[in-house]
Amino acid sequence: MPLTGRRKQLNEIIFGTDTPAGKYFDVILIWTILASVLLVLLVSVESIAGYYGELFFILEWVFTALFTVEYLLRIYCAVDRRSYVFSFYGVVDLLAILPSYLALVFTGASYLLVVRLLRVLRIFRILKLVRYLRDANLLGRSLWQARRKILVFYASMLVLCIIFGALMFVVEQPQHGFTSIPKSIYWAIVTITTVGYGDIVPQTAFGQAIAAATTLIGYSIIAVPTGLVTAELATEMRHERTLHRCDNCSRAGHDVDSEYCKYCGYKLAELHDLHGAREEG
Amino acid sequence: MPLTGRRKQLNEIIFGTDTPAGKYFDVILIWTILASVLLVLLVSVESIAGYYGELFFILEWVFTALFTVEYLLRIYCAVDRRSYVFSFYGVVDLLAILPSYLALVFTGASYLLVVRLLRVLRIFRILKLVRYLRDANLLGRSLWQARRKILVFYASMLVLCIIFGALMFVVEQPQHGFTSIPKSIYWAIVTITTVGYGDIVPQTAFGQAIAAATTLIGYSIIAVPTGLVTAELATEMRHERTLHRCDNCSRAGHDVDSEYCKYCGYKLAELHDLHGAREEG
Amino acid sequence: MPLTGRRKQLNEIIFGTDTPAGKYFDVILIWTILASVLLVLLVSVESIAGYYGELFFILEWVFTALFTVEYLLRIYCAVDRRSYVFSFYGVVDLLAILPSYLALVFTGASYLLVVRLLRVLRIFRILKLVRYLRDANLLGRSLWQARRKILVFYASMLVLCIIFGALMFVVEQPQHGFTSIPKSIYWAIVTITTVGYGDIVPQTAFGQAIAAATTLIGYSIIAVPTGLVTAELATEMRHERTLHRCDNCSRAGHDVDSEYCKYCGYKLAELHDLHGAREEG
Amino acid sequence: MPLTGRRKQLNEIIFGTDTPAGKYFDVILIWTILASVLLVLLVSVESIAGYYGELFFILEWVFTALFTVEYLLRIYCAVDRRSYVFSFYGVVDLLAILPSYLALVFTGASYLLVVRLLRVLRIFRILKLVRYLRDANLLGRSLWQARRKILVFYASMLVLCIIFGALMFVVEQPQHGFTSIPKSIYWAIVTITTVGYGDIVPQTAFGQAIAAATTLIGYSIIAVPTGLVTAELATEMRHERTLHRCDNCSRAGHDVDSEYCKYCGYKLAELHDLHGAREEG
Repeated sequence: MPLTGRRKQLNEIIFGTDTPAGKYFDVILIWTILASVLLVLLVSVESIAGYYGELFFILEWVFTALFTVEYLLRIYCAVDRRSYVFSFYGVVDLLAILPSYLALVFTGASYLLVVRLLRVLRIFRILKLVRYLRDANLLGRSLWQARRKILVFYASMLVLCIIFGALMFVVEQPQHGFTSIPKSIYWAIVTITTVGYGDIVPQTAFGQAIAAATTLIGYSIIAVPTGLVTAELATEMRHERTLHRCDNCSRAGHDVDSEYCKYCGYKLAELHDLHGAREEG
Repeated sequence: MPLTGRRKQLNEIIFGTDTPAGKYFDVILIWTILASVLLVLLVSVESIAGYYGELFFILEWVFTALFTVEYLLRIYCAVDRRSYVFSFYGVVDLLAILPSYLALVFTGASYLLVVRLLRVLRIFRILKLVRYLRDANLLGRSLWQARRKILVFYASMLVLCIIFGALMFVVEQPQHGFTSIPKSIYWAIVTITTVGYGDIVPQTAFGQAIAAATTLIGYSIIAVPTGLVTAELATEMRHERTLHRCDNCSRAGHDVDSEYCKYCGYKLAELHDLHGAREEG
Repeated sequence: MPLTGRRKQLNEIIFGTDTPAGKYFDVILIWTILASVLLVLLVSVESIAGYYGELFFILEWVFTALFTVEYLLRIYCAVDRRSYVFSFYGVVDLLAILPSYLALVFTGASYLLVVRLLRVLRIFRILKLVRYLRDANLLGRSLWQARRKILVFYASMLVLCIIFGALMFVVEQPQHGFTSIPKSIYWAIVTITTVGYGDIVPQTAFGQAIAAATTLIGYSIIAVPTGLVTAELATEMRHERTLHRCDNCSRAGHDVDSEYCKYCGYKLAELHDLHGAREEG
Repeated sequence: MPLTGRRKQLNEIIFGTDTPAGKYFDVILIWTILASVLLVLLVSVESIAGYYGELFFILEWVFTALFTVEYLLRIYCAVDRRSYVFSFYGVVDLLAILPSYLALVFTGASYLLVVRLLRVLRIFRILKLVRYLRDANLLGRSLWQARRKILVFYASMLVLCIIFGALMFVVEQPQHGFTSIPKSIYWAIVTITTVGYGDIVPQTAFGQAIAAATTLIGYSIIAVPTGLVTAELATEMRHERTLHRCDNCSRAGHDVDSEYCKYCGYKLAELHDLHGAREEG
């Protein structure tokens, strides 16, 4: 059932990004979301919240009202209401307004306001408006292509962390901070990824030798995901380049961000469209 | 001497991964192992172990019993019993059940339960069931190809760590935490790998200058293993691609995860088989 | 209006780098800047400043005098005085001398001396004198080519940090150091980049699990910028190589630092010039 | 003046690595050096040194005697004595024995024993014996090719560290650990390289924001050296491959570690020799 009249018009504005009004709406929405995110951040800072408490409370409800109206409008004008409500963004939109209302009934629910931060995910939506999406696609495809290799890599790393963690638990004993195997595994992960907080550190000579071995292993396997992603990215970028063909002289090999053919000066077709076609076709 | 009758049947189930029963057995085994690994982890957490001590004690013996039966069955149906018992997995299987029995005789042997964690290594076996193995092979081969370069790299790094460690020992003196040269080398390794626990840090101006130099060197040589693995991976991935040849039109160059020929649409042979053939042939 | 007489001569010395006098001036300037930078560093070390206070005070004014004369001369002989004064280096040059004079009027302004450190940026100017610039160009172009992908990457990372930071704020509570969401975001950035100071660390089991997840994510996305820059650099370096063409036999493919044609021994044109031409043309 | 008689024979054993006796000597030397290095490490551990003091003292003099004899023999049989004595290894060899003798005269000179650790550098000499050198060469050449780009990169990073360090000094003030600009630069280096000891950490909100910016910048420029080395390594490895040509069927493209031609099974010439030829020719 295609939409008609006002619902269709609203749908184009709220869900669409192709019409000027749709773009405008999305830009305003993103800024509103960023402002509400900033508000949640500031509310959590005690020294500031104590000072501007009144103002923050009012702003809080202004944003809640705005997002409630937006949520109801989205339900009103969605092509398939059910699928919107249960979609990822539909749930996020609901979660963003629910905590404020819950806080009226239950005290302590104000902590749930943090959930509103999930709305920053909508930033990815706005990317559709600009050509940056093309690059996001490239990154995403590369990671997707390498997904299985990355999984094998993570499985190996977790097994390594379990074994090194257990070893440290036996060697260092609870009194040196390695109070349980899960905590030792936490230590192993923090070490092998080269984060190294230093909240739990080996104190015996043998434990330090194992730690040194763990860091050296971490150092060498950090190369693996980098190598994987680089290799996939290089392949994807070469692919991208071959796709980018001039409609006039039909020569390919243009840079991803070229706008005019470097051989004949003809305006190149948007690489964007090619992607869309490839994804749908 | 080829196996016959029940032994052959059992062998196919326990050691094989080709028959449905064999796959089924392996999947159950992996889940049992993961459950027993989880148990060992939880037993080490004092607050939980104090609460569920009884239950954990029973589960402990259930797993021991299961693994004992499995171990005996493996010995019973192995093609070459001697070689199984002394194989890597044979020893791991024995080590996984021994501690429980030893704990009956000696107190304190319960620490050895940690050895059971080695059984997580069997996870790599299960990978045979799925196509993920192909990618594990690729990673393994790349690391193997780069093994000598990685060795030269590690040798250089250790020499660097010894020299920087000794320098720090002389500069910072024991009272600042650098109590011995081995400990200073431990500091150098933790620094050069950019882990940086912060349990031992330079406190004199000169020591901090050396630390800064060490971190900068660590920063630049982190590039070497990454570069090595990336270059090898890129080569291996190109190799993989050339191997992937269509049986119908015999054109190669398909992506590793293509299932159909991109030129004629014919179903491509499983790349999996090619590997197997290469490894055995 | 082209410059004439003394102004033209001075302009060539002070702004130019092509004449021997111009090069000479720039080299002296860089050493003077480095000396003044060293002075600012030493003045900030209390134990040294207390000892050499007198000397430092005199040197301070010597450098201020020198830089004042240089600044006035630059204004005097600039082709377009207005555009020099408001250019990046013009403002930096003014900022480098202003604090000393302000310190005469206001106490406390001596802190502003730190601004003089910005003058180290002039180091990049001196690079023009040597062939190193060519490589700086290559690095710069590669980063510029990858700018949009890097932006998308940073946007994703910030969204991740906000979400993980907020999660930690709720899980760990203020008493464990996560006193506000902005501070938790600071923790998330420090963790995801694998810096890991250890000033704020999770203390609950659940918090440590989230921290482990954060470090693992950080570990895998560290691969993305590396992959991007590597792929761009490889492309740029291949491009560089094709540009480097012999004027005699007109065969290309020479290494970036070749000075003679590898086919006929003819002196190759400076790659430097090609760059200049490309940038202006 | 070519050597004759006993001097020539000794020279071949001590300096050479081509005769069996020469190889044998080098292997024994390396093990002796490693043992003496181990001794220096153990002597520095108070708890062990207190126990085995006597034994360590004797071993100390045994090694000193051995190295003294070796040093005198090297001078005796060197082709050009002067150039040996003032060569890098000549100086290291002298420094390795001097401290023991100095300790007889001056107390406290025993600290100089640490200098003996420099002898581990001779490990690189032994590499000549084995084929690992080929890979060391490859790594070395790649780093050498990228030397200028790496220099530009380090210059940019140091300028960044100076500016961020100065900024932190002004923002955080001495009472938060940022007691001087050099110390703040030390902090900036430790942060930008993602080491993150945590001995000096920002404590104001603004300082933490700057720290977050610094780590993010460090995170993205870690990609640059990696990209450089990877790109150079890939080029070098391709070069290596084209050099590796079969003498029988004259087809190239063999892997670096191939020993037989993959087309005709003919024994391939040692890639080692090619390098030597290239370096000398």
